[in-house]
Amino acid sequence: MRNLTEENVTEAVINTFANTENPRVKEILTSLVKHLHAFVREVELTEEEWMYGIQFLTRAGHMCDDKRQEFILLSDTLGITTLKDIINNRKPPGVTEYTILGPFYVSGAEEMPAMANIAGDTPGEPVVISGRVTNPSGQPIANALLDVWQASAEGFYDVQLPDQAELNLRGKFRTDAEGRYAFRTIKPSFYPIPGDGPVGQMLRAVGRHPYRPAHIHFILSADGYEAVTTELFVEGDPYLDSDAVFGVRGSLVVDFVQHDSAEKAARYGVTNPFYTVEYDFVLQPLS
Amino acid sequence: MRNLTEENVTEAVINTFANTENPRVKEILTSLVKHLHAFVREVELTEEEWMYGIQFLTRAGHMCDDKRQEFILLSDTLGITTLKDIINNRKPPGVTEYTILGPFYVSGAEEMPAMANIAGDTPGEPVVISGRVTNPSGQPIANALLDVWQASAEGFYDVQLPDQAELNLRGKFRTDAEGRYAFRTIKPSFYPIPGDGPVGQMLRAVGRHPYRPAHIHFILSADGYEAVTTELFVEGDPYLDSDAVFGVRGSLVVDFVQHDSAEKAARYGVTNPFYTVEYDFVLQPLS
Repeated sequence: MRNLTEENVTEAVINTFANTENPRVKEILTSLVKHLHAFVREVELTEEEWMYGIQFLTRAGHMCDDKRQEFILLSDTLGITTLKDIINNRKPPGVTEYTILGPFYVSGAEEMPAMANIAGDTPGEPVVISGRVTNPSGQPIANALLDVWQASAEGFYDVQLPDQAELNLRGKFRTDAEGRYAFRTIKPSFYPIPGDGPVGQMLRAVGRHPYRPAHIHFILSADGYEAVTTELFVEGDPYLDSDAVFGVRGSLVVDFVQHDSAEKAARYGVTNPFYTVEYDFVLQPLS
Repeated sequence: MRNLTEENVTEAVINTFANTENPRVKEILTSLVKHLHAFVREVELTEEEWMYGIQFLTRAGHMCDDKRQEFILLSDTLGITTLKDIINNRKPPGVTEYTILGPFYVSGAEEMPAMANIAGDTPGEPVVISGRVTNPSGQPIANALLDVWQASAEGFYDVQLPDQAELNLRGKFRTDAEGRYAFRTIKPSFYPIPGDGPVGQMLRAVGRHPYRPAHIHFILSADGYEAVTTELFVEGDPYLDSDAVFGVRGSLVVDFVQHDSAEKAARYGVTNPFYTVEYDFVLQPLS
């Protein structure tokens, strides 16, 4: 390792992992060095660009605290999170797709009876969401748990607003014997990811907006089935084709069907006009 | 971008850079995403491993302050710094090679007459270093500036020890009309890079030691020539073949020749025994 050159330096670095005890650590570091070196070679990174990168990472690190995770935001906005998610959640066709968990999940939401309203008196357009949870053959899964959370019509989660009720716009529901679930809520809004850090700077530099399209989060679980973290997106949202964090899957975009019927609204216990959404989730049996 | 799959997600992310104003920013981000995604695909990074990476970067960021730069240390120990240095300092054969600047450079060292001692009364084995600075044809370069700094025999730079004199083991020297330089110092020691952060953890996980072989830093400059940042290494040092930051170049390893002669020592103004080092630097004319 005395005669390092442009040609042999990558191999020299990889050779220093030869005595790594854990084979997976060795595999990951070897691959990381190979690909990072390939990047530096391909763009012929200058001294100033390298230092910009060092300072970018440092600023990102300094932004991280209990409430803010700039490195996850960086991973999300560069599609690394989505690639990792897809690789780790390969599903047979027809099974509900996984998508990004996001930073706003809070455990401990209340289990509610069917048709309960998770929005309380939060202002917004009422929505009734219902459907079934089945196995891939269409057989109902009874007693499946839906853990639901979403942002308000202004695009904020409860944890972002100190004056919002705790666990507002969150709830848990169980399917009945026919695999049916139903609950009431309000139509969510698109919202921006935090833009006041280095990730926001990066987005502005490349001419990207910071918005996620409107969506409702779900974690579905049932005995004997693989749990899935997913989201339902609102068809027609202006950011469906440019989600800042690459979370949209075509199979998860749903129609919010608008109704103008005082009679139906009264039947559902919502104000008129209102929306209905029908969506059937499909879970994969544990192998 | 609604139908993201394992196959198309990388292209989808790269397409979001289409409107980047600065073509170099677009080139760098495109290459970075391509290679980072290739890494994630190759190792099929798990959720836990991804989160370990996020937390590793976060801990590295939290270690960075005015005195500590954990991301540079990470770049150094993964050979990224050296690769960047080699790419940005390609020299014709025979010209003095560039190597790593390191974090301990301080501008403002005193210009001293030939044969001055930069070590003052710092304990250590005396060394007389001398030689010439020439162009690639061997013609002397007069009035070239050598900015020199090094660690003590205990392996510490002045800035690391609050009780050391300011600018100890630092000095500037000018070549004479024949391109000659000479100064006195002490033999430096190998020393460890900081091991109390995530980079130290990484080194321990792969079974690497944290040592840099003993060396003396130089920045050489002269009117009409490309400046070069370099180091001279002590032949025989136990860490020459395993420098933690990949800084050694064969052409920069020099013999510290030991002398046991009270008469010679008196002539050089050093205590007996002592070392001499002869090294000729070659600078590239500005193109």
